[in-house]
Order: sequence, then structure tokens, then C-alpha cells
Amino acid sequence: MTTTNGRNATDLIDAPRGLHNVVVTESALGDVRGLEGFYHYRQYSAIDLAERRDFEDVWHLTLYGDLPDGRRRTAFRERVRMVRALPPELAALLPDLELASRSGNSLDALRTALSLAGSAAGMRPVYDLDEEQRIDDAIRLCAQTPTILAALYRLRHGLPMLVPRADLGHAANYLYLLTGRVPAERERRAIERYLVSTIDHGFNASTFTARVIASTGADMAAALVGALGALSGPLHGGAPSRALDTLDAIGTVDRAADWIRDRILSGERIMGFGHPVYRTEDPRSRMLKQVAREFGGDRVDLAIRIEAEVEAQLAALKPGRELHTNVEYYAGVVMELCGLSRQLFTPTFAVSRTVGWAANIVEQARDSKIIRPAARYVGTPPPVEVPLPT
Amino acid sequence: MTTTNGRNATDLIDAPRGLHNVVVTESALGDVRGLEGFYHYRQYSAIDLAERRDFEDVWHLTLYGDLPDGRRRTAFRERVRMVRALPPELAALLPDLELASRSGNSLDALRTALSLAGSAAGMRPVYDLDEEQRIDDAIRLCAQTPTILAALYRLRHGLPMLVPRADLGHAANYLYLLTGRVPAERERRAIERYLVSTIDHGFNASTFTARVIASTGADMAAALVGALGALSGPLHGGAPSRALDTLDAIGTVDRAADWIRDRILSGERIMGFGHPVYRTEDPRSRMLKQVAREFGGDRVDLAIRIEAEVEAQLAALKPGRELHTNVEYYAGVVMELCGLSRQLFTPTFAVSRTVGWAANIVEQARDSKIIRPAARYVGTPPPVEVPLPT
Repeated sequence: MTTTNGRNATDLIDAPRGLHNVVVTESALGDVRGLEGFYHYRQYSAIDLAERRDFEDVWHLTLYGDLPDGRRRTAFRERVRMVRALPPELAALLPDLELASRSGNSLDALRTALSLAGSAAGMRPVYDLDEEQRIDDAIRLCAQTPTILAALYRLRHGLPMLVPRADLGHAANYLYLLTGRVPAERERRAIERYLVSTIDHGFNASTFTARVIASTGADMAAALVGALGALSGPLHGGAPSRALDTLDAIGTVDRAADWIRDRILSGERIMGFGHPVYRTEDPRSRMLKQVAREFGGDRVDLAIRIEAEVEAQLAALKPGRELHTNVEYYAGVVMELCGLSRQLFTPTFAVSRTVGWAANIVEQARDSKIIRPAARYVGTPPPVEVPLPT
Repeated sequence: MTTTNGRNATDLIDAPRGLHNVVVTESALGDVRGLEGFYHYRQYSAIDLAERRDFEDVWHLTLYGDLPDGRRRTAFRERVRMVRALPPELAALLPDLELASRSGNSLDALRTALSLAGSAAGMRPVYDLDEEQRIDDAIRLCAQTPTILAALYRLRHGLPMLVPRADLGHAANYLYLLTGRVPAERERRAIERYLVSTIDHGFNASTFTARVIASTGADMAAALVGALGALSGPLHGGAPSRALDTLDAIGTVDRAADWIRDRILSGERIMGFGHPVYRTEDPRSRMLKQVAREFGGDRVDLAIRIEAEVEAQLAALKPGRELHTNVEYYAGVVMELCGLSRQLFTPTFAVSRTVGWAANIVEQARDSKIIRPAARYVGTPPPVEVPLPT
């Protein structure tokens, strides 16, 4: 009798490759409606939230399920502000972590720093905590993420680390920590809309990783660090700066039509276009395009022209094959307009997505069932008594 | 039309809770036959391997699928030895990582150190590497794990870190790095059998975490660090030292019968007994019991007597409810006999299990499909146009 994990191998349930469409859990955090070009956090349109609420309000919504009113709103902002600064032992180690990182991106140094931040705070397994303690750990690590990333960025450029500003909100403080300047309102609002719109987006591989680790009862840092590892994979995190490569390659509006036709006819991929989930325009892309329009200028004109050319030429050359800009395309344009260098694009994405992961970890921790699927053994079957070669 | 992740919500496949029995992947690495009390690595009984092969041979088997012959055997041992020592920048930071860790266990400091070791080695996404390069990264991090853990342990006790010994194998070198003494052959062989027998054991939550992260194409360190996070969860990693608590509570052989009857009648759990997979004796437990017998002494007599009493009294008091020792029970006894303190039990488990995770990551990296299941939204459904509260 061949068995796997204590059960007959025939009891195993064959799932689609990559667990595609297989429901792991129920969630009240939000959803993506790919055919409608719509996604939401709790019961609210994520885009409406990005347009009309600041980051802390939506952060509260993901953790508590409601948008906070005046007094609770103030208290939540204060709670975030209180834990933004890094503990001294972590701040003292950041220069070494930055130096030791040879990968050229900040995600692996952030991975190490968040792991250390969890240790330094003495974080305990989520299963030994009540929900409010879990939320405390979530807020601490998410509040420290922009502080860590900005410090790593400045250290890499030979600049001193800065101390968080208590008078600034989450988005403005992040920009301040990077640049040493309080951002202009237009830049602040642009980045805030970007951050709110990227907190969560369905059940992707990093969110799933966070929930598998949380299902073992591990601590908040363990689960966030695992999610960050998944995000760093080329099949997942993408690279928001790649879309700008398309703009650079084309250069000026007059060259757009020829360049795009060549690409389409040769069947090459155009970076910044196409999304595995949306069959419509990506709603984040639509919003960020509007943000870019408010800035205006040659670069924005070029981006809009390229988008229009791709759509028009595809309709002419490959009827039926619709292709829309994805979130990377206008996100790259907007971050560039706000003065962020390309090496900051993925870290800035991590600033918001950690908040989404943490909310998923808090939700998962309410379930006492470990996530533990099965594998089917397909190697040479051993008899119970196996002769070893001598 | 309500859709989830771009598809109709009705296309979603409801899976058993925790993905129980759902096949995520095929694997040729090994399997557990819970009803037979048998598990294997590749085509060989894992217990036979533990009895008759050293750690490096089985490590080679997990990565390459065969037991190495003379020349390849020598080459593989040399390859492991070459990367055991920590890079200076990592070694220099370990005292700070140890100090910053307030959790009292070494797993979180190991998590930080492995993350840093991956950065310091400039590890690239597995999808940008060929298989031999992935194996290089796997060997480097698994070879450094005992060095890191022994260093953290010694630092915590105010002792200087030691440098790996080129003349010792993986198991002996680990014991040397902890104690500063070359272990006696009996201790070396006992720990080596324990380590070989715990390299891999079916598709548990940490192994699954490693494979989800690897499926995004992320680097070896990202995937190992995530797995380590899952192992640290109380529902997964367990605590091999708990089983010794049973021995301590009973104290002497003459008190065993009464203590156990009280426990069974009151329905309390007896630590070290029972396993979710095996319906028979755990084959690892059977082997480690034999290892303990070779040491002998009062403590071993007590452990064997307690096991016999539990089985006999259960048969008398709760007929049909079989309960056998799990791997924690005799593993704790054996590690204690070898002079390892209880705080080293879980780290020592990590020494071997990282090797199993790494082999799983190498196998997963051959598949280009990201593991990305779905969630079912169960919160308040928003209309496409949602009024926000003002």
C-alpha cells in the first residue's frame, strides 16, 4: 500500500498547476474583479480611497475594517508615528547591512533589517498574542519599513540617515526621509495616491507566503520577511523601472509610431503593457495616468502618446488582441515626476505592500489550521527494504 | 458579474481547509508512508541512510539524486568544506545580531544571519541561474548554517567564535564549533544519524513555504529564510526539548506508572507522544531509541520505561487509542546524551532541515510556474460605484 503523508496516495487531490484558482482561505480584506477592472479594500473601491483618503486612514481600514473618525483617526496616526524611529541597535547596524548587500537592490537589505527589527522588538509567535498585540507588531514593522529603506538609500549615496518627522504623515515623511526636504504638496499627494492604491491586490504569491508562514503561528517578522522574499522573485515583483525603458528607447513623440509597429510585428514584448489579471485597463494605471497629467510636460505627453499608439496599432495589426498599460507603466512615470530614482521604485512599492501583507497575517492568525498541502512522489519507488549500494 | 482575480468567482475551486491532501507539485525527492511507518529520500530508506552513510553523502543524494562514489564523494566533501567559514563581514556582525535578539531562541538570529549571508554572497534570483549555480548557493548557505548557529550559541555564553575544522565532517565539525572539542566517535555518530534522519520529511509547511518563494524565481536566501520563518511557528517546529519535560516531571522509574495513569485518566497530553502522520511507530523514533540504548544509563532506562508504560496503560485504559513516541522524544534524549543543551535542540534540527529545504528549492526552480492560489472574498460586497463616508 503506497501512502503519502500517512494517507493513501489515491486520497490526494490533484490541483491545477500552481494551485491556480484553488481557494486557500476566505478573506474579508478585499478582492480584485479582473473582468470589471475594479478592485477593493474591504467594502470600498481602492481607487476611491486613493483619491480621497490618506495612507493612515486606509491602513486603519485594512486592519480594523473601518475608516476611522476624528478621534480614532488622530489616535491611529499617533500610534504609527510613535514607532517610526528605529531602535538604536538596529539603526547602528544599517550601515553594515547596506555594505554587506552586493545585490544592488534594497529588498534583500530590507529583508535582513525587518528580520532584525522583529528580533529587536522581541516579537513573539502570533499564536501567543491577542489580536491587538498582533496589530501592534504589524504597525511597528510597517511603520519602520520606510525609515529603513530611506536610510539604506541615503547610506548608499554617502548621506547621513535622517530621523522621522512627527509633523508629517506616512507618505510625506517617507519622501522627507529620502530627500531631507518636506515634499511639495503635489509630489506628496501623488506618492500618497500611489501608495494607497498598491497596499493590496488579491491573493498573489507574496501575500500567500505571508499567510502560510502565519498559519504556523510564527511571529509577524517571520511572515513579513518571507513575503518580501517572494516579492523579490522576478516572476512576481516585476520591475516598475522597466516601463521607463520603453520611454527611453523611443525618446520623442515623433519616433513612437515606427518603434511600436516594429515591436508588434516582430512579436516582442513591450514593457509596461499587459497584466495577468485585468482584461480591461488596470484601474491603478488609469488613476496614475491622471496623476501624471496633473504634472504635465514632454515626458507625460510621450507616455500618453505611446499608450495610444500601442492600442491603435494593436487594433490594426492584431485585431482582437487588446493590451493595456499595467500599473508599472504610469507608476514609473509618476515616481520619476516626483524625483524618485529608479532604484527606489521597488522599495517604494514595498512601503505600501508590507501594510497589505500585515493585514493578511492578522486575518490568517485568527485561523488555527496550518496550511500544509501535499506533493506526489514521482521518483523511483523504493521497496520498504532497500539495499543501499556499498 | 462578480469575479475574483479576473475569473468568475464560480470558477474557483474549493479546497479542503489548510489545503490538506491537495497536490501542489510532483517531487522526486522523497516521501513519507505514514501507514507503513516508512519514509525515504529518493529511492532509499532514510533510516538505512542514517545508519550507513554520513551526512555529506546523503546531502549529495538530495541534490543530485545519487550516492556519490569515491572521487565524486571526495569532491563533494571538499566543496562543502570550502564554504563553511563565514565571510568576514558576516562574522563581524554576529555579535550584534546575537545581542539584538531578544526572543531567547536562535532561530530568529539565524533568520537574520542567513538573509545577510545571501546578500553578502551577492545571490541572484534562482531563475537567472543554471542548476549548478543554484546548487552552489544551496551548499553555501547550508554549510554556513552550523557555523552561524554555533557562533551565536558561543557568543550568548561569552565564548569566542571558532573557525571550522577542515579535517572534520559536517556533523563532527558542528559539534566541534559548539564545544571547542573534537567529539568522541559515539557522540559524533549519534548526532550524524539524527541529522541524516531529519533532512527531509514530506511536504510540511516550511518546505512548502520554501517552494512558494522559489516559484517566484527569488534567490536561495529568500526562500530559505521564509522556510525558517515557517519552522519557527509553534504549530510547525514543535519543541524537541518538551519531551524531556516529561522525563523531568516523572524523575525516576518507580514513579512512572502512577504519573502516566493520572495523565491518561485526566485526558492530558503527554509530550513526545503522537504524530499527525504516522499511525505506526515513527521510524526516526525507533532508530534514535536504538542510539540511546547504545549509550545506556538511568536516563535512557527511564525513557524506555515511560514509553512502555504509556503504551501498556493506553492499551488497558483506552483500548484502540494507540499512541507512539514521536521524533522529539528520543531525539531529545539523544541530544542530551551528546551534551547538547536544550536551547540547541531546535537549532540542531535546522542544521539538517535547511539541506532538505534547499533541495526542494532546487527542484522547484526547474518549474517556471508561479504558485499562486486564490482566496474567496466573504466581506461586504461593494458595488462598482461605492460612496465613501465623508
